[in-house]
Amino acid sequence: MSLLVTGTVAFDAIETPFGKTDKIIGGAATYISLAASYFTKDISLIAVVGDDFPESYIQILKDKGINTDGLQIKPNEKSFFWSGRYFNDMNSRETLITELNVLADFDPIVPEKLSAPEFLMLGNLAPIVQSTLISRLTKRPKLVVMDTMNFWMDIAMDDLKQTLKMVDVLTINDEEARQLSGEYSLMKAAKKINQMGPQFLIIKKGEHGALLFHKNHVFSAPAMLLEDVFDPTGAGDTFAGGFIGWLAKTGDISFENMKRAIVYGSAMASFCVEKFGTENILLVSEAQLNERVRAFQSMSSVEMML
Amino acid sequence: MSLLVTGTVAFDAIETPFGKTDKIIGGAATYISLAASYFTKDISLIAVVGDDFPESYIQILKDKGINTDGLQIKPNEKSFFWSGRYFNDMNSRETLITELNVLADFDPIVPEKLSAPEFLMLGNLAPIVQSTLISRLTKRPKLVVMDTMNFWMDIAMDDLKQTLKMVDVLTINDEEARQLSGEYSLMKAAKKINQMGPQFLIIKKGEHGALLFHKNHVFSAPAMLLEDVFDPTGAGDTFAGGFIGWLAKTGDISFENMKRAIVYGSAMASFCVEKFGTENILLVSEAQLNERVRAFQSMSSVEMML
Repeated sequence: MSLLVTGTVAFDAIETPFGKTDKIIGGAATYISLAASYFTKDISLIAVVGDDFPESYIQILKDKGINTDGLQIKPNEKSFFWSGRYFNDMNSRETLITELNVLADFDPIVPEKLSAPEFLMLGNLAPIVQSTLISRLTKRPKLVVMDTMNFWMDIAMDDLKQTLKMVDVLTINDEEARQLSGEYSLMKAAKKINQMGPQFLIIKKGEHGALLFHKNHVFSAPAMLLEDVFDPTGAGDTFAGGFIGWLAKTGDISFENMKRAIVYGSAMASFCVEKFGTENILLVSEAQLNERVRAFQSMSSVEMML
Repeated sequence: MSLLVTGTVAFDAIETPFGKTDKIIGGAATYISLAASYFTKDISLIAVVGDDFPESYIQILKDKGINTDGLQIKPNEKSFFWSGRYFNDMNSRETLITELNVLADFDPIVPEKLSAPEFLMLGNLAPIVQSTLISRLTKRPKLVVMDTMNFWMDIAMDDLKQTLKMVDVLTINDEEARQLSGEYSLMKAAKKINQMGPQFLIIKKGEHGALLFHKNHVFSAPAMLLEDVFDPTGAGDTFAGGFIGWLAKTGDISFENMKRAIVYGSAMASFCVEKFGTENILLVSEAQLNERVRAFQSMSSVEMML
């Protein structure tokens, strides 16, 4: 089924204890659509870059079958640029540079041919941009998934709450769930967030896995245990891309199928962190993915003899 | 099968955002043996208290079928006393008082009738006391499980490493696993710790569940999601007690059965934190435990259709 993705398409420059990169292709929408492209080929992108963004980077997306007709290229402007450095434990980082550039006044124009997607994935952006895009669709998608972060809770909570009313699934991390709800208990936080709009809540816990909440149901997925985490950049977006990609491929938005989608998202994210940037998720084979999904199952399966 | 438990038997005074207690019954060996007593009645205790320790507290243990012949009562001495205060998030606490008292020169005397247990659980104590107890047994137990903490890594690492050579299963938290191994990756940490002696490693992650490592196998168990955590005191010991209790009940020390033991340990720990001290684990019914184990299974089960 058709999938529309929005979010940043950007330059990233990354430093980790294992090395550093020049300006490589990054951004939430990039990771989301590349991860989703593993599962389905009917993907389109709504995003913006400057004319400094190399055609070869756009070609990486096209090569994966991603429709870039909705990618605006602004003449005489510069692309969004983020640079960060990870500390030794790879769980904390500092932002070195954030240049908004074209992102500062991003107007999410939706080409008519892309205006009725069956699945919509809103990567992290200003909530007002996310809601504007929804309002421009000609048909309500079967499922709208939204990612956001604490930054918007700090400076645009009212916009965020308005956008939350329009979405089905919210993905945030545990600290953000606590901040958004004012509840420390994740059970209580999930109930409050459900009342804000999203029927489904995914709490991303990094190395501790992910939780899916829906009504009285909870699913807890472990994270893959890896010998080495090389670069965590984009892991959350890759998770979201694998999640929505699996749902768009299968067209099944039941709780049971969302559990599977979380395992596929976690598996894709586990490949992402094993190399710099998008390098590894471009290369994943079906055999590798299935092997990792089986490892997930083996990690969390137990027969209780009740 | 017979289970011998050592560790502290103590007074605890606990403050949480929900209230505070006077001096109540506490200590690692208390929580371990009470949790284990749910599963098996052949449990004996090696521990020490002062003559200030009320007979009614010892009766709590006896009422659960725990043999207290190995509980030394030192005349004119005072029992170990710990007092602590939990902060609002219940994940961090400060110690207000630690009075070692009788624990300062605890000599773990093993009555002859208790000297050949099939299962041995070493609750948190000085590693030299733990190894002394092992050396006094007349027969090597079928399984030796050891709990320890960062405190002993800071002040008695050599003793700790000697004791590690004598045990089969080590239970520690994630930060302690990193400290003990010098590795941030838990996969690498587990391999190094396996080389120090224990064939099985359990990493306790609190609200994020627990991991079991053995050779190339990993099992990841979620923690129960609770609306409220009332008092985390003793949760790790209750986990260990449920774990060893299930193994002693079944007599099966395979990896598959240790996975089940971890689920039972997690379930018992989830009851522990719902009330102050040992209050709730004294009351758990079979129906309640089975219901919670089913909730665990439902939380972590997914059919992948591979």
